Amino acid sequence: EAADITILGGSLAEKAEEVKSFTLKTPKGTKDYDQKDMAIREEIFSKITAVFKRHGAITIDTPVFELKDILLGKYGEDTKLIYDLEDQGGEKCSLRYDLTVPFARYLAQNGVSNLKRYHIAKVYRRDQPAMDRGRMREFYQCDFDIAGVYDPMVADAEALRVMSEILTALDVGNFTIKINHRKILDGMFEVCGVPADKFRTISSAVDKLDKMSWADVKKEMVGEKGLAEDVADRIGEYVKLKGSKELCDKLDADSKLSGSKSAREGIEDMRVLLRYLEIFEVLPQVSFDLSLARGLDYYTGVIYEAVVSSSPSVQNGEQVGVGSVAAGGRYDELVGMFSGNKKIPCVGISIGVERVFALLSARRARSEIKANATEVYVIGLGEGFLEERMAICSQLWNADIKAEYMFKRKPGNLNRQFEVCDKEQIPLAVIIGKQEVEAGVVKIRKMSKEAADSAEKEVTVDRKDLVETVRNMLSA
Amino acid sequence: EAADITILGGSLAEKAEEVKSFTLKTPKGTKDYDQKDMAIREEIFSKITAVFKRHGAITIDTPVFELKDILLGKYGEDTKLIYDLEDQGGEKCSLRYDLTVPFARYLAQNGVSNLKRYHIAKVYRRDQPAMDRGRMREFYQCDFDIAGVYDPMVADAEALRVMSEILTALDVGNFTIKINHRKILDGMFEVCGVPADKFRTISSAVDKLDKMSWADVKKEMVGEKGLAEDVADRIGEYVKLKGSKELCDKLDADSKLSGSKSAREGIEDMRVLLRYLEIFEVLPQVSFDLSLARGLDYYTGVIYEAVVSSSPSVQNGEQVGVGSVAAGGRYDELVGMFSGNKKIPCVGISIGVERVFALLSARRARSEIKANATEVYVIGLGEGFLEERMAICSQLWNADIKAEYMFKRKPGNLNRQFEVCDKEQIPLAVIIGKQEVEAGVVKIRKMSKEAADSAEKEVTVDRKDLVETVRNMLSA
Repeated sequence: EAADITILGGSLAEKAEEVKSFTLKTPKGTKDYDQKDMAIREEIFSKITAVFKRHGAITIDTPVFELKDILLGKYGEDTKLIYDLEDQGGEKCSLRYDLTVPFARYLAQNGVSNLKRYHIAKVYRRDQPAMDRGRMREFYQCDFDIAGVYDPMVADAEALRVMSEILTALDVGNFTIKINHRKILDGMFEVCGVPADKFRTISSAVDKLDKMSWADVKKEMVGEKGLAEDVADRIGEYVKLKGSKELCDKLDADSKLSGSKSAREGIEDMRVLLRYLEIFEVLPQVSFDLSLARGLDYYTGVIYEAVVSSSPSVQNGEQVGVGSVAAGGRYDELVGMFSGNKKIPCVGISIGVERVFALLSARRARSEIKANATEVYVIGLGEGFLEERMAICSQLWNADIKAEYMFKRKPGNLNRQFEVCDKEQIPLAVIIGKQEVEAGVVKIRKMSKEAADSAEKEVTVDRKDLVETVRNMLSA
Repeated sequence: EAADITILGGSLAEKAEEVKSFTLKTPKGTKDYDQKDMAIREEIFSKITAVFKRHGAITIDTPVFELKDILLGKYGEDTKLIYDLEDQGGEKCSLRYDLTVPFARYLAQNGVSNLKRYHIAKVYRRDQPAMDRGRMREFYQCDFDIAGVYDPMVADAEALRVMSEILTALDVGNFTIKINHRKILDGMFEVCGVPADKFRTISSAVDKLDKMSWADVKKEMVGEKGLAEDVADRIGEYVKLKGSKELCDKLDADSKLSGSKSAREGIEDMRVLLRYLEIFEVLPQVSFDLSLARGLDYYTGVIYEAVVSSSPSVQNGEQVGVGSVAAGGRYDELVGMFSGNKKIPCVGISIGVERVFALLSARRARSEIKANATEVYVIGLGEGFLEERMAICSQLWNADIKAEYMFKRKPGNLNRQFEVCDKEQIPLAVIIGKQEVEAGVVKIRKMSKEAADSAEKEVTVDRKDLVETVRNMLSA
C-alpha cells in the first residue's frame, strides 16, 4: 500500500488507456519471487541466521548504494559491472557490488576495531545474466566476517566451523571444504621459479583447476602467460597434493619448499588451523588442497571453498546444484584502504545462497510448498453466515491461531471452500451451518489426506471450547 | 565476505595511500544501522510479520529497481523524487519509489487476480532529507494488501483489524484509527457546491486539518484555491463531524447530503464496515471522521490513518513519536493501469515502520539493548586453556547453545572476560582453570546483577553434565 502516490490529472481509467502499451516485465537480469520461492528463501535465511546467532554474530545494515569513490579501485576490471545512479545533481553513487567493501567502509568510518557480523542482502552487477544457471544482476549475498586483532587461526577456525554448521543445517548434500593458504601458494611459486610479478596471474591460472585439466592450465601458463615449461611442471607436482594434517609434515620435509619463509609461515598456520578444526569436529569435512588458489588479490592468509560432492537428489534424472556453495578467506589489508594507517584484520565466509536456493528448489515439487502459515479455514454452509465466520476468526486471532475465511457473504458451493484448504494446505476446517449456529457449536475437521479415514477426522464442540480444541488438534 | 573482489595492480598498501583522502560517509539521506538499531528493527519486523502470517498473508519480492516506464505517470509532481539509474547502454531503470506500484505491476504481469500479500522492503526518494525527524532517502516501507473481487467491506475490515493488531503488538501507545470514505467526501463537496474540477485540490486542503486550524485551511480554500466563502463554510460544518455508528444515521438524516448518490453509497459502506469492525472488536479504536481526506488521488473507497494519541513514554521530558503511524485505503483502479481492461480491486495498509522505529528507539537506553543472542561466554583462567575453551564451545554449539569465547590463547586478566559478559549481556559464564581442567569439571556462573547475591550463583559440574546444566540454568 503506497502512502504517497499522486496521479497527475485525468482519471486512472484514462491513464490506463495511455499506458497499456507498456512492456510489463522486470529489468534484465532481475526477477520477481512469488510466495513459493519466498517460502524456500525464508527457510534458507532462517537456518543460516540461526547458525550465525549461535556464534554470537550481530547484523548491521548499510545503504544499497554507496558513494562511487568508495567502490572505485576495489574490483579491478569488474568495475565495469558496477551500476551507477544517474547524476541528478548531487553525489555520484553506485549500487553496492558486494557486502565486503561496504563492511570495510563501515568499520573504518565508525572506528569499529572488532566485530563479528553477518549481513544478508542484495547486491548488483551489470553482468551478462544467465537466468537458467542462476546468474542474475540482482542477487543475494550472505556474509559472515570476523574483524579484529586476534591470535593466529582462532577466528579462522570459527569461520570454518560456521561454514560447516550452515552447510549441514541446509542439507545440501555431502560437501568438502578445500583449504589452502596464500603464503604457501606464494612460497610454492617462489621455489618453483615463478617471477614475482607473475604470482597473481599464475595464481589465477591455478584457480581454474576445478574446471580445467592440468594440461589446459599448463597451456595457459606457458602459452598465454609466458611461464617456462619446467617451472610449470614443478607447479604441477605441487598442485596435485592434497590431504590433512600429514600434508603439513610432508611439506615441512620438502627442503625446497621449506626454504621459503612465506611457505614456512603458511604451513605453520595450516598446522595450527587443522588442530583447531579437529577440536571443532570439522576436520573430516576438510581437504588441505594445494590446487585451491581463488582468483582474488585481496586474500592474505587462509583461503577456502566448499564444494558439494554429491547432491542427495536429482531432478529430471539430472543432478542439480553440484559445485561451489560457500567460500572465503582472510583479508587483513582491505579495511586499511579506508582507514589509512589503521589495519583491521578480517576473515570471512560467503554462503552462495542463490546456488543453495536453486539446489533446494529443484528438490521440491512446487505443489508441496506451503507458502502461507494458515492453520484454520472457517467455512460457512448454506446462507454463508459471514458475520459468524468473522466472529470465529476474531476468536481464533485473539488466541494467536492463524485463520482465514472466504471474503464472500455467500461462498456458494461447500466444495469451493474445501478446495481452498487443499490448495493452501490448511490443516483444519471450522465449519458452521444453520444447525451449528443455532446450537452454538462448530464442527472442526482435519483436512489432511492422512486424516481422511481417521475416526477422529471430525469433532463437534461448543463455541467456548473452540480455541482449546483447535490447539489440541493442531499440536496432535 | 566478498567473493569477487579483484584489486587491479599494486599492493593494497599502495592503494590505501592513493585513496585515503576519501570522504568516508554514506550517501546523503542514507545511514548505517548498527547492531543495536538492527536489534530493534528486527523485533519490530518480527512482530509485524507474525500478525501478517496470522491472517494468512504471504510475501513476494520484487526487484529494487523497475523499468522507468513502469513508475512514470504514477506519482504526479513527486516524479522528480525518483532515483534513476545511469543509462549504461541498456534499459532505463529507476529505484522503486514505493511498494504499491511494483505490487500492481506484479499482479498485472503475472495475471494474479487475488492475493493477500505483505512486503517489507526499502524504497527510495530523492527528497530533502531531515534525518533528525526520520525523513530519509532510503527507508523501509511495510505494506499489507488484499487484491481480489470480494463482497463490500469484507477485505477492508480485515485490513483494519490487521492494522489494529499490529499497533497493539508494537505497543506504540494509545491509538485511534480515523476512517472516512472518498465517496462521502465527494458527496460532501458536491452538496456544498464545490465545482467538480476542484474536488481533489479542496480534498488536499481538508487533508491538512490534522496539522492546521480550520481558519487556516479555509484561508487556503478561499484565498489560494478560489472557493466561494459560503461553500467553504458549509464544508467547515461537515468536517467537524466525527463519531461511530450513530454518525451514519446522522448523515443519512441530512437531507442535503443524502441527496448525493455518492454520499449515500459511502454512508452505506461505512455502516457495513463499522458493523464488521464491531465483530472484529476494533470499533473502540475507530473514529469515523469526516475531516480525514488523505492527499492521494488513487483512493476510491474507504481511507484510514492511525494516530498515536499518547505515547506511553517520554525522553528528556519530551513526548516522542506522536503522530501518524499507519495509513491506507481502497484503490480499485491502480492495477488496471498495467493490466489494461482487467480491473483488480485492492485495499491495503502501510505501517510507518521508520516512525515506529524512532518511537521505540527513543524509549530504550542503548546500553540495555542486547544485540547478540549469546547465552554462554567460555572463560579461561591462568594459562588460558584455549583448546579446552574451544572444545567446550564445540560441545555447546552441538547442543544449539549460543556460545562465544575470547579469540586469544591467553586472555589475560580474568576481569577482561567478565567485562565482555557485562557489555554483551551474556547471562552465563563457563569458567575453567587448571583445577577444573585436571578434574574434568567446569564452573558455571550466572552473570546477571540479580544473581550476584544468589546462593545458586555458581555451580561446579562434570563436563558431561555441562549441556544439561546450562540448559536448566538458561530456562530457570
